[in-house]
Amino acid sequence: MHIKIGAVGLGRLGRLHAENIAFRISQAELTAVCSIVKEEVDTVKSSWNIPYGYYDFEEMLQNKELNAIVIASSSTEHCRQISQALAAGFHVFCEKPLGVGMEEIRLAQQVVTKHSDKVFQLGFMRRYDTSYAYAKKKIEEGFIGEPILIRCYGLDPVSAINGAIAFAENSGGLFSDMAVHDFDLARWYLNSEANKVSAIGGCYAYQEFARYGDIDNGAALIQFKNNTMGIFYASRTCNHGYHIETEIVGTKGSVRIGTVPYKNLVTITNEQGVTNECVCDFLERFEVAYLNEIQNFVDCIIHNKKPDITVEDGVKSVEIAYAANKSLATGQTVYLD
Amino acid sequence: MHIKIGAVGLGRLGRLHAENIAFRISQAELTAVCSIVKEEVDTVKSSWNIPYGYYDFEEMLQNKELNAIVIASSSTEHCRQISQALAAGFHVFCEKPLGVGMEEIRLAQQVVTKHSDKVFQLGFMRRYDTSYAYAKKKIEEGFIGEPILIRCYGLDPVSAINGAIAFAENSGGLFSDMAVHDFDLARWYLNSEANKVSAIGGCYAYQEFARYGDIDNGAALIQFKNNTMGIFYASRTCNHGYHIETEIVGTKGSVRIGTVPYKNLVTITNEQGVTNECVCDFLERFEVAYLNEIQNFVDCIIHNKKPDITVEDGVKSVEIAYAANKSLATGQTVYLD
Amino acid sequence: MHIKIGAVGLGRLGRLHAENIAFRISQAELTAVCSIVKEEVDTVKSSWNIPYGYYDFEEMLQNKELNAIVIASSSTEHCRQISQALAAGFHVFCEKPLGVGMEEIRLAQQVVTKHSDKVFQLGFMRRYDTSYAYAKKKIEEGFIGEPILIRCYGLDPVSAINGAIAFAENSGGLFSDMAVHDFDLARWYLNSEANKVSAIGGCYAYQEFARYGDIDNGAALIQFKNNTMGIFYASRTCNHGYHIETEIVGTKGSVRIGTVPYKNLVTITNEQGVTNECVCDFLERFEVAYLNEIQNFVDCIIHNKKPDITVEDGVKSVEIAYAANKSLATGQTVYLD
Amino acid sequence: MHIKIGAVGLGRLGRLHAENIAFRISQAELTAVCSIVKEEVDTVKSSWNIPYGYYDFEEMLQNKELNAIVIASSSTEHCRQISQALAAGFHVFCEKPLGVGMEEIRLAQQVVTKHSDKVFQLGFMRRYDTSYAYAKKKIEEGFIGEPILIRCYGLDPVSAINGAIAFAENSGGLFSDMAVHDFDLARWYLNSEANKVSAIGGCYAYQEFARYGDIDNGAALIQFKNNTMGIFYASRTCNHGYHIETEIVGTKGSVRIGTVPYKNLVTITNEQGVTNECVCDFLERFEVAYLNEIQNFVDCIIHNKKPDITVEDGVKSVEIAYAANKSLATGQTVYLD
Repeated sequence: MHIKIGAVGLGRLGRLHAENIAFRISQAELTAVCSIVKEEVDTVKSSWNIPYGYYDFEEMLQNKELNAIVIASSSTEHCRQISQALAAGFHVFCEKPLGVGMEEIRLAQQVVTKHSDKVFQLGFMRRYDTSYAYAKKKIEEGFIGEPILIRCYGLDPVSAINGAIAFAENSGGLFSDMAVHDFDLARWYLNSEANKVSAIGGCYAYQEFARYGDIDNGAALIQFKNNTMGIFYASRTCNHGYHIETEIVGTKGSVRIGTVPYKNLVTITNEQGVTNECVCDFLERFEVAYLNEIQNFVDCIIHNKKPDITVEDGVKSVEIAYAANKSLATGQTVYLD
Repeated sequence: MHIKIGAVGLGRLGRLHAENIAFRISQAELTAVCSIVKEEVDTVKSSWNIPYGYYDFEEMLQNKELNAIVIASSSTEHCRQISQALAAGFHVFCEKPLGVGMEEIRLAQQVVTKHSDKVFQLGFMRRYDTSYAYAKKKIEEGFIGEPILIRCYGLDPVSAINGAIAFAENSGGLFSDMAVHDFDLARWYLNSEANKVSAIGGCYAYQEFARYGDIDNGAALIQFKNNTMGIFYASRTCNHGYHIETEIVGTKGSVRIGTVPYKNLVTITNEQGVTNECVCDFLERFEVAYLNEIQNFVDCIIHNKKPDITVEDGVKSVEIAYAANKSLATGQTVYLD
Repeated sequence: MHIKIGAVGLGRLGRLHAENIAFRISQAELTAVCSIVKEEVDTVKSSWNIPYGYYDFEEMLQNKELNAIVIASSSTEHCRQISQALAAGFHVFCEKPLGVGMEEIRLAQQVVTKHSDKVFQLGFMRRYDTSYAYAKKKIEEGFIGEPILIRCYGLDPVSAINGAIAFAENSGGLFSDMAVHDFDLARWYLNSEANKVSAIGGCYAYQEFARYGDIDNGAALIQFKNNTMGIFYASRTCNHGYHIETEIVGTKGSVRIGTVPYKNLVTITNEQGVTNECVCDFLERFEVAYLNEIQNFVDCIIHNKKPDITVEDGVKSVEIAYAANKSLATGQTVYLD
Repeated sequence: MHIKIGAVGLGRLGRLHAENIAFRISQAELTAVCSIVKEEVDTVKSSWNIPYGYYDFEEMLQNKELNAIVIASSSTEHCRQISQALAAGFHVFCEKPLGVGMEEIRLAQQVVTKHSDKVFQLGFMRRYDTSYAYAKKKIEEGFIGEPILIRCYGLDPVSAINGAIAFAENSGGLFSDMAVHDFDLARWYLNSEANKVSAIGGCYAYQEFARYGDIDNGAALIQFKNNTMGIFYASRTCNHGYHIETEIVGTKGSVRIGTVPYKNLVTITNEQGVTNECVCDFLERFEVAYLNEIQNFVDCIIHNKKPDITVEDGVKSVEIAYAANKSLATGQTVYLD
């Protein structure tokens, strides 16, 4: 059985998803691509020999050859496109975040719940990273005993700062845009929902973010309902590359993922000392995870399974981000619910 | 010039201080030892051939051969002994914490201030650790640009848990007892005082601490007055040893101290993988720092200098600990001042 | 253009090559599989839906739909199958080593040279490993200055010892079987051929190898013609996994590849200390390299290019292995040529 | 009991020994210093308040207040000074190497043997390094099973190259001057003597060494009598600092000492990646070992014990160095004895 997929959004990540579908997943076909940027559609369609190209999302949904839609468009489009694609009878994979406002997110959640016969998967790709999955397995096997605390670093390379500034108006803010991945990881590893959140931060290097009420570095402290703890640091100004580090401490031991964001297995020495170069961005770090998540989406469709990552994961992680935003604004601890 | 020192308190750390004074600092002499545990006095006096032994602190202060007093007695004695020793005309080195209640701490601060002609140094030995001092130098040289955030781990080995439980009633709680070192480091590296504190925690492995209103693991998020951030994790249940890790992130780079608490330069491999064994306790990790701090105290006396670590450092770090305790109790963010 | 490939040999590595061709290289098709183990052919043919299955290699060569042959059969078959496949007009990829005797190797070299219009590539997959390729690039960019010395560790996991013993009679010995990869790397990084070789070794843990005149651990020291140095250690008894480590030291710096053979980015801590688990075998370590090398083979066919790895690389690396064998047997330094 | 020591040689290392004796070993006194460089004597004598200063070694030996002599003069003086000091009735500590010619070394060995009532210790300080001693203990406890191979790197910082060139005429060559430490370690860890040696090397960066028949980088392969293996790399041109690395591989596991020659526990990150700075020289790396070895010498005198490091260790390690030199010169494997 071959799954015919239509992909919307052909930016850096959208294009990677399209490429993975087209060339690296044997049970899937990239049957259609869609973007409001016409050249992106034209280029991909002709160079990869894709049957259909669309400039309009709703038009693509008319194509009944398709089995599934992969959404990697702008975050502001996610909720609407999810609802439309499910209503049109397609399985849906959507990039994080689920949406950019709690209201539309809860509406989208209702739509997904209503179409429970369709596969819906959200793009928390880290769960499909070899190392994150291995850590999860270690924890489930009891290696660390009972979890006590999670620490998450989500540090974007400063080399991408211009893009971040350009995108700042619609990013939803540092915690929604970036730390949402970490909030999902925390819920996943700790098996609990957030109870209260304290957050601080500011513009330490780029005042440009202040214009949009955003920050370039922020930290949050979260108590979860099972009394486990989470400490989070998100930054847009990491000098050594893309640094995603996660540590889960338990009563018997701990696991750390990505303490050094190794570019590869090469260590170099010169008069500076002994150096490991680092991954430069999310595409380099999570190349395999991005492939694995789409593979999982396709497997779920073929074998009629439910993805591990649900719409609730999308809702809950954004709720935490909003609580962090509120704590940042009020200067007080914010309780959820 | 030889500095004749009387040392009070001969527990593990007190004995190390005494030993350093007696054998490893050429300009100092261990002229007297004092403890309420008589056998400790007798043993040290006779085996190291120390001129004077006392079971009573005030009696030792009568000995006018002495130039300086080193206090490593129980925390509940610190404030009183500092005041008495200064009043009797001695230079004073005192182990952290400065005391166990804000009232007595502020009184002691007044006494120290009044006797500003005497050297008074507090035992924040980490500042004298080679690596911590090197990190400070790097930061001052501008290597990381402007500081944004500090992260501090202060994790005691679970192998010492029985002692911690026995001592719990008088420890002042996890943040006062342990994190106070980290609060001092944060103030030192960030060059700022705490503005507000949020703290969480609990008894995750040893319910025994709950009896004293204490916890075995806790975390705090601190905003400093210059808007820099601090994230802190303190634990009494670290399985792999004594793990003191500090990271300072800045706009241009970062420094980490002690990411792996290497026991030594030996790496071992076997069927488990590639392993670094870890330091087992504070004496192993900070052996050199403990020597350096007493050397600095002696140097200050000889050369009529002021120690870098002042009584204010003791006051301010305890204030943060108390704010953390209050946040833990109330569930809310606590503002200082 | 699609390249139709027939694959011979369906052992662990042969099966991986077949799988890569079938599912992970979009411009290639696995059109035929061949093995003297009939069940292997039947299983792969039916489960992957492969058009043709053969139990006889020469029969497969009759299939004129095929464009290329990938050889991963027993080393003793390599030379013969290379010659036959080239003579039959196919492009050929062959696993290392080129063969098991200098005479047949030189004959095969002649055949390859004669069929220079065909793509011939040898399976020194390490050159296609991301880290090894990155190191090569660093060196070519001048990062280490002029090369002085290479150190190569090629350590097989002791968990595979039973297979190694079973295979010992036909392995060609430790240096031919394992270190040949390292000899190729040395030639590649140092840009020179071996001048003289000294080798030592023995059966340190498994006397079974002595029966075949083989050893379980060995080391060699090689002087290259440009006076650079190589030190080599090969082992069949590595306890912590599959450890392939290479270091190139130059006048300005050095690069190390694989100092710790990380299984993934997870670091674990428990009462043992801080541990990195290791890759368990060559399939785990070089998964991507095995894919890349076949991709390169296919690209060379499509774009009419010559592979970087030539038959001479196969000949020269085996010559070094034979010199090491001779030094081991005679106890003296052996000069090549 | 206080040991009164006369120290000869006040170069960098000699001065460190003198300083340790004067200030860091409570049971010893630096009673006299001696050097042919008069200013060195005058400076040390006056600034440290040392009772006696000599410009002539034999004159110092007339001082009957002294108990022991510590020799850190030029290598060419060692044998003569050892013999004279023992003959004059003193305990003797002597820096490595034992001497600079096999004839004088064997004569010195006879003198030491004859004066077996005196403590004689040779300066293989690495055995007193915390990490090297820990590795030895691990091995003796069976952690690695039976030793198979040792690998030793002894890499001097290129920053010291001018001194090395100036000293080249009298250094005895790379293997005698530097690798002799590693040969001693190999004998110590493997519990065996060398059987045969192959060595190669050259002037890769500094042709100046060729003038004295010396090299700037060299490697050796050694088979020991118990069939264990040793691979050695010595360099005078290490760019990242002073890199002393040793690995012992056994049938059950391995230990590595100093894979990264960490300057301290600080890791730095910036746009280059994640970097550990390295120790700059032997004084920084082995500061504690140099203190420990003199402490051991003093302990042996006080408690009438024999040092673990004997004159035979000095003889045997130099014999290996000479065999390496011979192999380098002849291009052939050299058998000892």
